[in-house]
Amino acid sequence: MGQIVQCVPNISEGKDIDKIKRIIEPLQHKTGFKLISYEPDQDYNRTVITLIGDPEAMINPLLEFYEIALNEIDLNHHKGEHPRMGAVDVCPFIPIQNITMDDCISYAKKFGELVFKKLNIPVFLYAMAAQKPNRTLLPDIRKGEFEGMKEKIKEDEWYPDFGHAEIHPTFGVAAIGARMPLVAYNIDLNTDNEKTARQIAKYLRGSSGGFQYVQAGPAYLKEKNHVQVTMNILDYEKNAMYRIFELVKIEAKRFNVEVLSSEVVGLIPKEALLDSLKYYQKANHETFDKNMTLEEVVTLSIQYLKLRDFDMHKIIEANL
Amino acid sequence: MGQIVQCVPNISEGKDIDKIKRIIEPLQHKTGFKLISYEPDQDYNRTVITLIGDPEAMINPLLEFYEIALNEIDLNHHKGEHPRMGAVDVCPFIPIQNITMDDCISYAKKFGELVFKKLNIPVFLYAMAAQKPNRTLLPDIRKGEFEGMKEKIKEDEWYPDFGHAEIHPTFGVAAIGARMPLVAYNIDLNTDNEKTARQIAKYLRGSSGGFQYVQAGPAYLKEKNHVQVTMNILDYEKNAMYRIFELVKIEAKRFNVEVLSSEVVGLIPKEALLDSLKYYQKANHETFDKNMTLEEVVTLSIQYLKLRDFDMHKIIEANL
Repeated sequence: MGQIVQCVPNISEGKDIDKIKRIIEPLQHKTGFKLISYEPDQDYNRTVITLIGDPEAMINPLLEFYEIALNEIDLNHHKGEHPRMGAVDVCPFIPIQNITMDDCISYAKKFGELVFKKLNIPVFLYAMAAQKPNRTLLPDIRKGEFEGMKEKIKEDEWYPDFGHAEIHPTFGVAAIGARMPLVAYNIDLNTDNEKTARQIAKYLRGSSGGFQYVQAGPAYLKEKNHVQVTMNILDYEKNAMYRIFELVKIEAKRFNVEVLSSEVVGLIPKEALLDSLKYYQKANHETFDKNMTLEEVVTLSIQYLKLRDFDMHKIIEANL
Repeated sequence: MGQIVQCVPNISEGKDIDKIKRIIEPLQHKTGFKLISYEPDQDYNRTVITLIGDPEAMINPLLEFYEIALNEIDLNHHKGEHPRMGAVDVCPFIPIQNITMDDCISYAKKFGELVFKKLNIPVFLYAMAAQKPNRTLLPDIRKGEFEGMKEKIKEDEWYPDFGHAEIHPTFGVAAIGARMPLVAYNIDLNTDNEKTARQIAKYLRGSSGGFQYVQAGPAYLKEKNHVQVTMNILDYEKNAMYRIFELVKIEAKRFNVEVLSSEVVGLIPKEALLDSLKYYQKANHETFDKNMTLEEVVTLSIQYLKLRDFDMHKIIEANL
C-alpha cells in the first residue's frame, strides 16, 4: 500500500461559492488522492479543504490550486472572523498511513520551494516543518495578519524560509507545514456576546495558562446570531475533547450562558472521539466498546458532545 | 504601614519535636514578625515553618535559626519521602503588603550572602531571585539531592551564587529565593484507589499537558482511608481554584468516584478564594461582594469548595 497523507489547505474565501469552485477545480477527480470535502464558512470568510491520498500525486494539482487562488483572491479586500495572512492561508501535510512525519516534512519543504519559485509567494515552513523556533506555532507567524505582514516580513527573524522580505501584494504569504492530525473543534454558546467567548477561550488555552495543547479564540456567527469558542486541539490525547467540552460548560455558567452544540471542522481521527465516548459511557455506567462501528461512534458523539452537522465522512477512517 | 512578607523556610527534620523546637526557637516571640505555624510531617521528615511580618526584622533571627539547624541536622543521616538538599532546604520570601517582588529578591540576595559569609553554606538563589535560568525551578536545582550535590556543585553550571564548588559536609546546600504566593490545595476522593488520584492528577497538571501552573500528584491518607489529588497552584490567577475543583469532579465521574472535600495546606491569599467565590456566586445568580468580611469568605469557601479544617487564620490577610 502506498503512502497516505491528509492535506488541509485553507483558503481566504468562504462566501463566493463559484469562486471557491474555480479555485478547487484542479483538486477534483484526480488519481492518487481524493478531495474529501470543502467547507466554506461565511462568517470566517474561509474554506477548509480536505484531501486524502498520495502526497506525490497532490503536488502539481496543489500548485495549480495556489495559482488560481492567487488570481482569484486579493487579501487587500478580504474581511472575516478568522485571522489570515495569505490567499491560501495554510497548508499542512499530515501523516495517515505508511508515511513518517519526516516524509511529510520533506513534502512540505519540496512544495514550499515550488510555491515560491513558480508563483513568487513568500513561504513560512511551520509546525513540525519549522526551521526556526518562532515558526512552530501558527498564531505566532500569523500575528499581525496580512496587513501587519508587510512590515513584519522585513524583520530579520521573520525573513521567509522561501522568498524575500516582501509579501506578495495580493496573495500575502503562505504557511506550509507538517503536523500530527489536530482536531478543529468549536463550541457554540447561546449568547451573541463575543466577550463571553473571548473570556472562556482565555481560561482554556495554553498560551494563557490553560490546557497546553489548546489554541482558542472567540468567534461571532452572524448567520446563527451566537458566538462560539473556536479551537484547535493540537494533541487530542493529552487534552481530550470531553474535558474541553465539560470545562466550557462550567465556565459558561459564570456568564449564565449555556452550551448549545459543538462542531468539528474538517476531519477527525476516530480515536479522538472514542476517547471521549469512553469517558461519557463510563461516567454513565454504560458499557464502552472500543470496537463499535463508525455509525455508533457518530450517534454517540452527537448525543454526548452535542455535535452538529456531523456524519461518518467527517471521520478520517471512513475515507481510507 | 511597613513592608510585610511571608517567609516559609522548610527544614529537613519532621520527627524529633524537641529538636524542631530548638531549631525554631530564635523565630519565636520576636517583634516585627510572627511565627504563624510550624507543620512537621513524619513521612516527609520535614517541617514547614511560616513567618509573616517585616523582612528586615526576620534577617538576624533567620540567621540564628540556620546556625542551629546546621548544628542539629546532619543530612548524611537524613531519610524522608520529600526530596532535600539542605538542613534548611528552602527559604522563599513572598511579597504580601507594601513590598514589591524586586524588594523580596533583594532580601533573598542579602540574606543568601549572609548565610554563606557567616556559616559557610553554599547558597543557590532560586525562583524569581534566580540569577541563572537553570535555577528558576527548585526541582532542577534539587535534582540529585544532598547525595548527588557533592559532585553536581563542581559542574560549572551549578557553581553556587554564594560560596564555592563544595557542599557543607553536614548541612549540604541552601536554596534561598523569592516567589509569588502559591496555594497548596488538595482534593479528597471517596476511594482508597491511588491509581484514580494519579490518573486525575495527570489530566490536570501542566507537566502532562494540563493546566500550566498546576503541579499535581496522588496521595493516600492512611488516617482517613481515602486518596487525594495533592497540588501546588503556582499561579492562582491563571489557574483558578474553582476550575481545578470542578474539573476534578468531572474527571472523578469516569471512575464513578465523588469529591468528598478539599483542603488548603498552609496559608492562602484572600484573593485566591474571592476569585472562586465570584465564580460560584455568579453561576448561582447570587450577588458577589468583593468587600465581604473574612468570616463570609470562610463560610462561602467551605460551602462551595467543600473546604475542611478551614478557618480564618488560614487566610494570609487574617494574620496581618
